[in-house]
Amino acid sequence: MPLKSRIAAAVSRSIRMGQGTRSDPPPAPAQLAAALAYSVSPGGARIRPTILTGVAMACGEDAADVTDRAAAALELIHCASLVHDDLPCFDDADVRRGKPSVHRAFSEPLAVLTGDALIVLAFEPLAGVAATRPERVAPLVRILAQQTGSPRGICAGQAWESEAAVDLAAYHRAKTGALFIAATQMGAVAAGADPAEWEELGARIGEAFQVADDLRDALFDEDALGKPAGQDSLHGRPNAVAELGVGGAVQRLRDTLAGAIASIPSCPGEGALAHMVQAYSEKLVPQHPAVRNAVPGE
Amino acid sequence: MPLKSRIAAAVSRSIRMGQGTRSDPPPAPAQLAAALAYSVSPGGARIRPTILTGVAMACGEDAADVTDRAAAALELIHCASLVHDDLPCFDDADVRRGKPSVHRAFSEPLAVLTGDALIVLAFEPLAGVAATRPERVAPLVRILAQQTGSPRGICAGQAWESEAAVDLAAYHRAKTGALFIAATQMGAVAAGADPAEWEELGARIGEAFQVADDLRDALFDEDALGKPAGQDSLHGRPNAVAELGVGGAVQRLRDTLAGAIASIPSCPGEGALAHMVQAYSEKLVPQHPAVRNAVPGE
Repeated sequence: MPLKSRIAAAVSRSIRMGQGTRSDPPPAPAQLAAALAYSVSPGGARIRPTILTGVAMACGEDAADVTDRAAAALELIHCASLVHDDLPCFDDADVRRGKPSVHRAFSEPLAVLTGDALIVLAFEPLAGVAATRPERVAPLVRILAQQTGSPRGICAGQAWESEAAVDLAAYHRAKTGALFIAATQMGAVAAGADPAEWEELGARIGEAFQVADDLRDALFDEDALGKPAGQDSLHGRPNAVAELGVGGAVQRLRDTLAGAIASIPSCPGEGALAHMVQAYSEKLVPQHPAVRNAVPGE
Repeated sequence: MPLKSRIAAAVSRSIRMGQGTRSDPPPAPAQLAAALAYSVSPGGARIRPTILTGVAMACGEDAADVTDRAAAALELIHCASLVHDDLPCFDDADVRRGKPSVHRAFSEPLAVLTGDALIVLAFEPLAGVAATRPERVAPLVRILAQQTGSPRGICAGQAWESEAAVDLAAYHRAKTGALFIAATQMGAVAAGADPAEWEELGARIGEAFQVADDLRDALFDEDALGKPAGQDSLHGRPNAVAELGVGGAVQRLRDTLAGAIASIPSCPGEGALAHMVQAYSEKLVPQHPAVRNAVPGE
């Protein structure tokens, strides 16, 4: 099965678990059930579970079901963060992925509950890993929790935006880097490898992603992004383009991705994984005239 | 250590995990760290972790640290539900436990994030159970997730309030019963016992608690409750007092608790647990003139 279909199937299994069935257990309330499915589609690149699965394969994957549960868990956490970040008290976003945000399509209460239920539905299928690889349950739960919650996860990352004095390194690492670290480390654990060696790759991909996101936020409008543009400037948030200019930000993006590839630990599928990260890198650089004008030889 | 102090210590350990330290890992953003501690205090009766610990002891507890991690997990989920339920888009409650609700004391973004982080912090310490009783990690994660999320947990319970046509049995079971079922089942698992036998006790305590809550909501004002009163009537929610009258509701409460005690499975500490549930029952009946007038011989 192609990676994209495999991840889509895993995400769908988790969502169906949350929707329930007509018999046992009783099905979820209809709107919550609909909002759960709505919040994970369209899937887009699903970059975090793709990296997770890529790392598991590079480590010599021996239990595809374990990888799939971990990949779905990570994607659900990411989707939960989007649903809650879009709420009126945060970004107040009307649009996400080119369609109305969950609170606009359903309601604000349902958006809060959908995010909550997605967080829980991320952890629930990890318990099922016990059926085949019981020793991998605890590290998967621990890594996912650490990179989702506080003090290091995306909850903490978002909460830095409420502080007058921001620890910028902690902010970026938690807000954007955390789920990429979860991707590489959970991928390693899913294949029975040591997660400690895989933190740096996740952190570097996260840094690159942050710079690419800053570029897109500064350069594109809402139609192109499928979500509100210029949010960093509007909310006074730090942005690499404001700090370094377009050319400097593009250079930093490329340097960071080169460092990411260099950091890949020795493993059976090292070459294939490097190729995957390289292919991803090329997609990360925004296709925009300002980038071509700012970078010599572009 | 008395049960109350033991549970308080376990909850504090989980909260400190979420706050982080000054060295490694970096501490959480200051307001989130403060809101995490604020949201779990004052602890009050902490009835869910108390039942959990009581069941573990009745089952012949053999790993106190496992019980404590499970008890803290359950209390954090309960507190997360209170923080999110108080949000403007749900109950819009200014007051909780006699002090400003989290979104009033901090802000709405911090209340959303505090609830999210508490959910994650419930699961994170369960991974630590692997150090001593690795086979108990997966069932603890599974039960907590099932009773918290969707379709059977408290997220689904709250979401039933957004539906035009409500499955009342599913609503009450999910909204109030779920965390009591988690309490008895996680208590059993924490002590190495079979959780299936312990579902009925949790479900019955949950039913009794729902009726008691209905009575308090109908009979008391905000000062006595420490939270807004008359919410069921205001929001058109089902309430046992509206259905049965005060006397009928008190009778149902007593019948349900008698059934709960009768359902306790055979176990080493069966008598002590029955005594604990009985003592709890007496506290559940609201001390109010309407109750004394409605119930003959009261």
